[in-house]
Amino acid sequence: MALDTGDTSFILICTALVMLMTPGVGLFYGGLVRRKNLISMFALSFVAFSVVTIQWFLFGYSLAFGTDVGGLIGSLEFFALTGVGMDGEGIPDLLFMAFQLVFAAVTLAIITSAVAERIRLSAFIVFGLLWTTLIYDPLAHWVWGGGWMSELGILDFAGGIVVHISAGFGALALALVIGRRVGFGQYSMDPHNIPMTLLGGALLWFGWFGFNAGSALAANGLAANAFVVTNISAAAGALAWMAASWIRGKPSSVGMISGAIAGLGAITPAAGFVGPLSAAIIGVISGLFCYYALLFRIRRGLDESLDAWAIHGVGGVWGTLAIGVFAVAGIGGISGLIEGNAGQLILQVIGAGAAIAYAFVGTYLLAKIVDLAMGLRVSEEEEYVGLDISQHGESVQV
Amino acid sequence: MALDTGDTSFILICTALVMLMTPGVGLFYGGLVRRKNLISMFALSFVAFSVVTIQWFLFGYSLAFGTDVGGLIGSLEFFALTGVGMDGEGIPDLLFMAFQLVFAAVTLAIITSAVAERIRLSAFIVFGLLWTTLIYDPLAHWVWGGGWMSELGILDFAGGIVVHISAGFGALALALVIGRRVGFGQYSMDPHNIPMTLLGGALLWFGWFGFNAGSALAANGLAANAFVVTNISAAAGALAWMAASWIRGKPSSVGMISGAIAGLGAITPAAGFVGPLSAAIIGVISGLFCYYALLFRIRRGLDESLDAWAIHGVGGVWGTLAIGVFAVAGIGGISGLIEGNAGQLILQVIGAGAAIAYAFVGTYLLAKIVDLAMGLRVSEEEEYVGLDISQHGESVQV
Amino acid sequence: MALDTGDTSFILICTALVMLMTPGVGLFYGGLVRRKNLISMFALSFVAFSVVTIQWFLFGYSLAFGTDVGGLIGSLEFFALTGVGMDGEGIPDLLFMAFQLVFAAVTLAIITSAVAERIRLSAFIVFGLLWTTLIYDPLAHWVWGGGWMSELGILDFAGGIVVHISAGFGALALALVIGRRVGFGQYSMDPHNIPMTLLGGALLWFGWFGFNAGSALAANGLAANAFVVTNISAAAGALAWMAASWIRGKPSSVGMISGAIAGLGAITPAAGFVGPLSAAIIGVISGLFCYYALLFRIRRGLDESLDAWAIHGVGGVWGTLAIGVFAVAGIGGISGLIEGNAGQLILQVIGAGAAIAYAFVGTYLLAKIVDLAMGLRVSEEEEYVGLDISQHGESVQV
Repeated sequence: MALDTGDTSFILICTALVMLMTPGVGLFYGGLVRRKNLISMFALSFVAFSVVTIQWFLFGYSLAFGTDVGGLIGSLEFFALTGVGMDGEGIPDLLFMAFQLVFAAVTLAIITSAVAERIRLSAFIVFGLLWTTLIYDPLAHWVWGGGWMSELGILDFAGGIVVHISAGFGALALALVIGRRVGFGQYSMDPHNIPMTLLGGALLWFGWFGFNAGSALAANGLAANAFVVTNISAAAGALAWMAASWIRGKPSSVGMISGAIAGLGAITPAAGFVGPLSAAIIGVISGLFCYYALLFRIRRGLDESLDAWAIHGVGGVWGTLAIGVFAVAGIGGISGLIEGNAGQLILQVIGAGAAIAYAFVGTYLLAKIVDLAMGLRVSEEEEYVGLDISQHGESVQV
Repeated sequence: MALDTGDTSFILICTALVMLMTPGVGLFYGGLVRRKNLISMFALSFVAFSVVTIQWFLFGYSLAFGTDVGGLIGSLEFFALTGVGMDGEGIPDLLFMAFQLVFAAVTLAIITSAVAERIRLSAFIVFGLLWTTLIYDPLAHWVWGGGWMSELGILDFAGGIVVHISAGFGALALALVIGRRVGFGQYSMDPHNIPMTLLGGALLWFGWFGFNAGSALAANGLAANAFVVTNISAAAGALAWMAASWIRGKPSSVGMISGAIAGLGAITPAAGFVGPLSAAIIGVISGLFCYYALLFRIRRGLDESLDAWAIHGVGGVWGTLAIGVFAVAGIGGISGLIEGNAGQLILQVIGAGAAIAYAFVGTYLLAKIVDLAMGLRVSEEEEYVGLDISQHGESVQV
Repeated sequence: MALDTGDTSFILICTALVMLMTPGVGLFYGGLVRRKNLISMFALSFVAFSVVTIQWFLFGYSLAFGTDVGGLIGSLEFFALTGVGMDGEGIPDLLFMAFQLVFAAVTLAIITSAVAERIRLSAFIVFGLLWTTLIYDPLAHWVWGGGWMSELGILDFAGGIVVHISAGFGALALALVIGRRVGFGQYSMDPHNIPMTLLGGALLWFGWFGFNAGSALAANGLAANAFVVTNISAAAGALAWMAASWIRGKPSSVGMISGAIAGLGAITPAAGFVGPLSAAIIGVISGLFCYYALLFRIRRGLDESLDAWAIHGVGGVWGTLAIGVFAVAGIGGISGLIEGNAGQLILQVIGAGAAIAYAFVGTYLLAKIVDLAMGLRVSEEEEYVGLDISQHGESVQV
């Protein structure tokens, strides 16, 4: 099969759109922290993107998409992109590599939620390089690279397992290792720049079209379906979170955009398998699940600071399971419970469960090791001063 | 006719670009209000987008594009997207639906100009749902869905009537119903964050390429023409407004970007019918018309607060008429006055006039009804405090 | 050859992406100056875009791409886009014109670095119009329009010579003519809004995919290669600058994004000729070169205020030469030194040298003439007050 200019055009632009999600995360998180750590949050997203870019082209892509070795990992045949060229099936091989790269990068950016306002920059670089190599790359291989999950028939259209469960439950583990921020629960840590968070959320929503529709890897009807259900689930999640929070008080704008992200995270694995009405249901339930997960997280005094777990993790699990319920054969070739097939749901439970376990335990161990080796956390004085000055020597002028 | 991957690729991305215009409006308006209402303006754009997404996929799309009923409205055959699938002519039907959805959403976002700094969130949700259903959907049907305007031969390439006249004159009516802000004309209500407005304007200009070029519904020469004339008209509008305001004082950056939007609004209906030189003329005239309309609005003490009427409304009318003057058969198959055909101009006058009347009267009645039923406006105390705190319980930290 | 919808789709969207780079420059620069000049920096980018849009469609495009006259300039055959239509080879002629336009516009925006916080708006309009006509258009013709450089075989895939050398060395000359800011070297002129600079940088990185990959003028494997090497060089540049500055102190986020832009500038001319590993080397070296160029600039007391020279100029020269070293025939059909061909390197030295000389001397003379004719610079009082108020009558509220 030769290259198709339409498909190639689409995935080139989708890759750019997904790239924009990484600074989108930086803006989203940057607005949620205190001003003294705004530059730090934004910078972490750039660091994540740069580090993963180099890792991915050198060996990460090969680990994820090289010839399968025992169902667990890819070979190093594509080291430094050897044999990854300008031709391919439908789209150039190099482009497929780039499209996968931006997924790996944004996943690492999402996980910075867990270490906001207290991570050492040097430790993040080391941790990020290892995390992408040891957690992300295997998961990507298992699901999309011919590994054991894909062999079993576990489905993940655009990254519910690979991106959102891994980042969400990785963040939870990482937060447990690094510990709470100084003063957590005592002082207000309210978002300091909500419009920045809303702008970041808007860029995420925008980029997510590339993320989900692009995962069709072609400019076709499946991409259109993914696009449409993505948008519906996002809107439904936003409205559901708004409604749920309105009952308890005033509906915050941060809640609305959080609900949208919850809907986006949940529809991600399912976007190529379910239809519009199902997407609305998935989005509403995700908005509610993630909202109550966030309340639970706060009540338990967990400082997974910017809620990657509550939103991406919980949303990703729900969406991964939802495939088993809502999938219709007419869209992605697979039937779920509503079409009378219980088998897929069982597979999805296995997939989600295994991914949760791997991401949580793996990240916990890795974070412990990096912490012992070099210390994940800045000193208490540096934390008081803020990471902008202590890590970057910069500050936002008021 | 089968799907074309190039066309499908183009419209998928254009849809994403137009989606970004809704938060673009949020930023644009958010910078223009006082700080205490910034989050509110931005949030209204998200609410508009989310509400319209659900409305559109459930029944709005069907009202606009279902089988014509008496020239006035579409049938409900496409309720919940029944029969709207992954195949289609050139592009998937689902994609056409999504492309039209983002137009409906941004139109509602534009209209928030009229109620800035004083609308109750709950009332906006109800009003927005009704307005899209009762004003936008019929207009979209009349012009693009096989209704009476399209039967007559009235032209609107990308939404001069459907989007800009409807939003602009709807905003005028809505402003009359809700009344002026407390202190209007007494206290300074200067823009508090002009760079945010400029960023929003930049995103609007960017997204407008998807809006106008995408309205060709194919990646072809007509799309390229629409792209080029869109950009020329925007630049001409920006420079014209700058020049006109320079005569009276200093040329503000808000004026420049307003002029660009005036040019963009005016070229929208005409982008598939006129050439580059005509676009420059259309843009210059739109920049001047809209600038003087804004001065007139202020002089009359009208608090259509962020000038959706002066810019989108007046620009949309001018552009709709300009088709009748500048259309050349070699581009869109229709001749205007300069090619010796006076008939099209008469049709355009009818179209613009009917749309003005329908949008203004319809919005006025609808706003009155919502106001009587639940009250459009926050209390005076809430208005003093600002909508960020009173409606969302949030604030921007300085 | 007929139009290809895939290629047309790609270049339409790439043109929009590159358009976004101009406000991206506005944000990037706006964050780097003092608050009193933020609106001015952003406005200059809009002015640049608008002025160049009109210049380009009227005659600039024809000067650059009209039939060659003596190797030096294009004829005026395409005046006001006469004969530039909706058909073409692969993509519509009008679209090629638009794609080239956004390059011309962003180049002028980059050069505003040199006059930040002290240029008169009216003088910038006159200077910008003349600079684009007398410096940019000839260079574009020489390299891409059939002029003497292309005849010689000098290569510039996406604008190392045409955009980055011309803007960088033009900025250096312009800075010498306009002179240092009042208080330069005495008062702190630290960036006042670093997140805005990071956001601008993110939009530049995003848009650069359109810039470089789009320069393949088709959605093919070459575009994919350009996309991939662009991203790798950017990441490598960011990490190299971060490392180099970390040795001397704390790694600033402004340094990281500056390094990314250095990598992007350097890979621009080479993106269609070199592979991924070479791109990493080019990016690392560019990050280091530009970082030390910036230190040199500061040590010499040169007030080329926002480092267009150190980053775009130096990066552009390095990338132009790097083609001669790293080009591989399997990608762009040309071999460099590492494939045993020394000839191309000599050509690249000639091209870079001639472009430096033309841009520097030409800009110097032009700036002198405009300065004598109308004065480039605001009064000292206006400079103290800031350009936002003195040129636009606006200010950012704190």
